[in-house]
Amino acid sequence: MMGPEIERLVGLMARLPGLGPRSARRIVLRLMAEREQRLLPLIAALDAACQRVAVCPVCGGLDSQQPCMICADAAREPLICVVETVADQWALERAAVYRGRYHVLGGLLSAIAGHGPEDLGIDRLVARLDGSVREVILALPATVDGQATAHYLTERLATCGVSVTRLAQGVPVGGSIEILDEGTLALALSARRAAG
Amino acid sequence: MMGPEIERLVGLMARLPGLGPRSARRIVLRLMAEREQRLLPLIAALDAACQRVAVCPVCGGLDSQQPCMICADAAREPLICVVETVADQWALERAAVYRGRYHVLGGLLSAIAGHGPEDLGIDRLVARLDGSVREVILALPATVDGQATAHYLTERLATCGVSVTRLAQGVPVGGSIEILDEGTLALALSARRAAG
Repeated sequence: MMGPEIERLVGLMARLPGLGPRSARRIVLRLMAEREQRLLPLIAALDAACQRVAVCPVCGGLDSQQPCMICADAAREPLICVVETVADQWALERAAVYRGRYHVLGGLLSAIAGHGPEDLGIDRLVARLDGSVREVILALPATVDGQATAHYLTERLATCGVSVTRLAQGVPVGGSIEILDEGTLALALSARRAAG
Repeated sequence: MMGPEIERLVGLMARLPGLGPRSARRIVLRLMAEREQRLLPLIAALDAACQRVAVCPVCGGLDSQQPCMICADAAREPLICVVETVADQWALERAAVYRGRYHVLGGLLSAIAGHGPEDLGIDRLVARLDGSVREVILALPATVDGQATAHYLTERLATCGVSVTRLAQGVPVGGSIEILDEGTLALALSARRAAG
């Protein structure tokens, strides 16, 4: 008894990641209650993103300019950081600790999901290594597929005249030793460094 | 470094109830990755809701027809259930235990928030009591403002020739006694009924 428009909207919202029927209803009611302040700006922003934002043909990131701002930024260092998703790229940008460019795979090698090298734009990555790039940093998840992908890339890039590195693994900042899994503890122990 | 369109969209999403920057980014990335299946239908649904859904002038509910489907439904019983929000109305409709009509206050009497009877459409409620309505059921929250509003409505409707009732209070179905607050326990005890 919500009316077909509201029902459809709640249904679409409820299927977004992290939302369910209850949170979707709450959001829809807020949007309907504040049309001028929330609903209309949201429609306009979704529309603008839909019209203008596209995947960067160079790195696979998202932007309204092509190539994206990061690829076009001449001040970026000659490094390429390989990430699985755009979300990973954004996390690195937010941390503001890296000033190179990116390569977004959009997935990982996976025999189960049937993702091969051709699905991940790895040829595009190799084509970017034109001699100006100094280093490729693999920032892939520490999962089976992530590590398989890192291994494949390390072999594939070995002959490209570029140094290939990966993020350090170990105890996260603020992380308690007590709750760490055995795999991380083993890695952190074997990769221990001189203190001070 | 997300691009202005994405940044604006994430910002708007992050201010919706229950969402924050992290969940908003996740939703936006999913929308951008599945434009045909998710983004375009969502824009269309938001647009349709914005264009067509309005507040019912009779009960204060939301619908694309005026008066709303529930007010227009001749099969509904001659009861009016007074609720604070449209969300409360939807909860009662989902429970499918009530077959009367509604009156959505859109708020509660509150000295602190400065909400008086005129803000809650209480005159509109009184105007609906034209003799055909048998009973007004107060389904207001068991909070200070909710109970103050229920008290005000009980007095206000006393001379309207209608019986005024309120939802029973007590132990929720599936509720453990152990975790109930003292107020609920006291109410449930004083309102105890013959067993079986």
